[in-house]
Amino acid sequence: MEQMTRPATRKGSVRDIAAATGLSIATVSRALNAHPSVAADTRDLVQRTAQRLRAAVRAEPDGRPPARQVVYVRCPYQLTDYFGLIVSSIAETLLLHGRHLLLDAGQVAQNENVLPTLGSRTDIGGAVLILPPEPSEELEHLRRDGFPFVVVDPRTPPPRDIPAVSAAHFGGARAVTAHLTALGHRRIGVVGGPHNWLAGQARLAGHTSALADVGVLADPALVRSAEPTAELGHRAAAELLDLPDRPTALVCFNDKAAVGALAAATERGLRVPADLSVTGFDDIDLASATTPRLTTVRQPLQEMGRIAVGLLVRLLDQHQLEALHIELATELVVRESTGPVPA
Amino acid sequence: MEQMTRPATRKGSVRDIAAATGLSIATVSRALNAHPSVAADTRDLVQRTAQRLRAAVRAEPDGRPPARQVVYVRCPYQLTDYFGLIVSSIAETLLLHGRHLLLDAGQVAQNENVLPTLGSRTDIGGAVLILPPEPSEELEHLRRDGFPFVVVDPRTPPPRDIPAVSAAHFGGARAVTAHLTALGHRRIGVVGGPHNWLAGQARLAGHTSALADVGVLADPALVRSAEPTAELGHRAAAELLDLPDRPTALVCFNDKAAVGALAAATERGLRVPADLSVTGFDDIDLASATTPRLTTVRQPLQEMGRIAVGLLVRLLDQHQLEALHIELATELVVRESTGPVPA
Repeated sequence: MEQMTRPATRKGSVRDIAAATGLSIATVSRALNAHPSVAADTRDLVQRTAQRLRAAVRAEPDGRPPARQVVYVRCPYQLTDYFGLIVSSIAETLLLHGRHLLLDAGQVAQNENVLPTLGSRTDIGGAVLILPPEPSEELEHLRRDGFPFVVVDPRTPPPRDIPAVSAAHFGGARAVTAHLTALGHRRIGVVGGPHNWLAGQARLAGHTSALADVGVLADPALVRSAEPTAELGHRAAAELLDLPDRPTALVCFNDKAAVGALAAATERGLRVPADLSVTGFDDIDLASATTPRLTTVRQPLQEMGRIAVGLLVRLLDQHQLEALHIELATELVVRESTGPVPA
Repeated sequence: MEQMTRPATRKGSVRDIAAATGLSIATVSRALNAHPSVAADTRDLVQRTAQRLRAAVRAEPDGRPPARQVVYVRCPYQLTDYFGLIVSSIAETLLLHGRHLLLDAGQVAQNENVLPTLGSRTDIGGAVLILPPEPSEELEHLRRDGFPFVVVDPRTPPPRDIPAVSAAHFGGARAVTAHLTALGHRRIGVVGGPHNWLAGQARLAGHTSALADVGVLADPALVRSAEPTAELGHRAAAELLDLPDRPTALVCFNDKAAVGALAAATERGLRVPADLSVTGFDDIDLASATTPRLTTVRQPLQEMGRIAVGLLVRLLDQHQLEALHIELATELVVRESTGPVPA
């Protein structure tokens, strides 16, 4: 069975495109990942060839694509800017690799208990799981079943042998707090994410570490944890700003929460950044729409999707995977919502 | 073949759930569509039953879901707030109906010439096409093939017999311009969408009609058309604001373009709304993040997704469809970016 389906499922792979175009595997791979070093002509050639090879697979006499060509993507959240950008890049990259995307998405998908049966499904070849809400044990079980999958933005520390892609939460949070300490801030409130999320813990650690660098121990009284929405960010920021000795800066778990924090500041007559600095995380469209625009940390959301598909395709093609846990660097984006500590 | 697959594909349909729960078909349908009139208990019961029936289908001995259970969704755009919300609600609703979602998304998907072969694919039962960039003729051809599909937010007027769901562009645009004329504005600039989009034309007609109601003929010199992004909205707004006799208000094609218009106003030292009123369209998160927050038109994005799936499921189950073109009402949301015409 494996032997029979193999030639069909492999059509459109990086190797096939390399063979068909005479380009190197490395160049084809870079072209499929839209690497800036690849000339536009070459990229076009690779995309056209990928489409042609893919069309050949679609024209197989049995009609249906082989199951190994179908990738299940689970993103049990609303596809707004954050998750939507990840899913878009996964969809685009799968298309370039000639694979089909079977999607479970939206809040309702959280009620589905899909992981235990995923390994026995015959209609899919592998999966990308985005911020899976399930406990680690379920992921480990799926791994032991030999089912190929990759986790994007894991909520809990992923087991060693499960491929995972995330942004460098620690480094990003450390950079944003270091930016604030350089501006003289020492009393910094944290509008954090849920405390049982890996991202929440890692970012808090980055914050603590940057404060320690200037000889300050983070004050637990200045830390709030909440679902990262504008409403809950607003509420957590309000609590921190109503403290008798209020913080001079707020680092927020994401841009949405920071929008809530800006509203809480405005309600209290606090000018940002003259009286209070506010930072976000993610750099989605929101971050450039506020007044002042948000200092934030850019997450490489689209690149996360591309890398995840790259890892999964290697698993499906039974290549060796070496770096199982990949952290993509984040970038501090300084805008107008941060300034010197008030005198 | 049809006879053989029918019992399996119908499990989890509204009728099956009604039969299993003893509820009426109307109640089940309302519960699946999250209608507010349905009690939480009833909704839970319906959702649990839907999941159970669905699980039964998944446990079919042949492993793969029948092709009629698989719905192809094409959204060849970035899944940011606008398209992401539509796709999320389609995903959630398909899940509740026990169907699988095969997704093509992202800008790259625009290069794929999929419509001509869609009707002959054996791995899918039907499709939802979101703002399809293809010409009407291709849609008509697909319809003549007997392939079941629904169009969401058509870019061009859909042929009579192709089911389509969209927001009431004319009504929404008319309401927002009427709001401005009631505030005394007469010289209103339009930062419009691409002029060959149905939405762009219908909204311009709504604008023209509201102006005519107060005895004003819309001035073509005050109309710009552009891809609705913040950058291009910024540029179009700048052109309008640099006119010798500048408009006192700008109606923008969407919230993103309005964010660009706010930036253009700020650069020119114009206060919003004291010197200039600005409006958006869509009411995505951005609209509440700006200062001032945007007066805009709320599109029922999630409801559009739910209705589209409802129509498609009826097509797949070969029920009669009567209202082929559905327009969902929009809602004017007045916030702080609009005010009386400057003296």
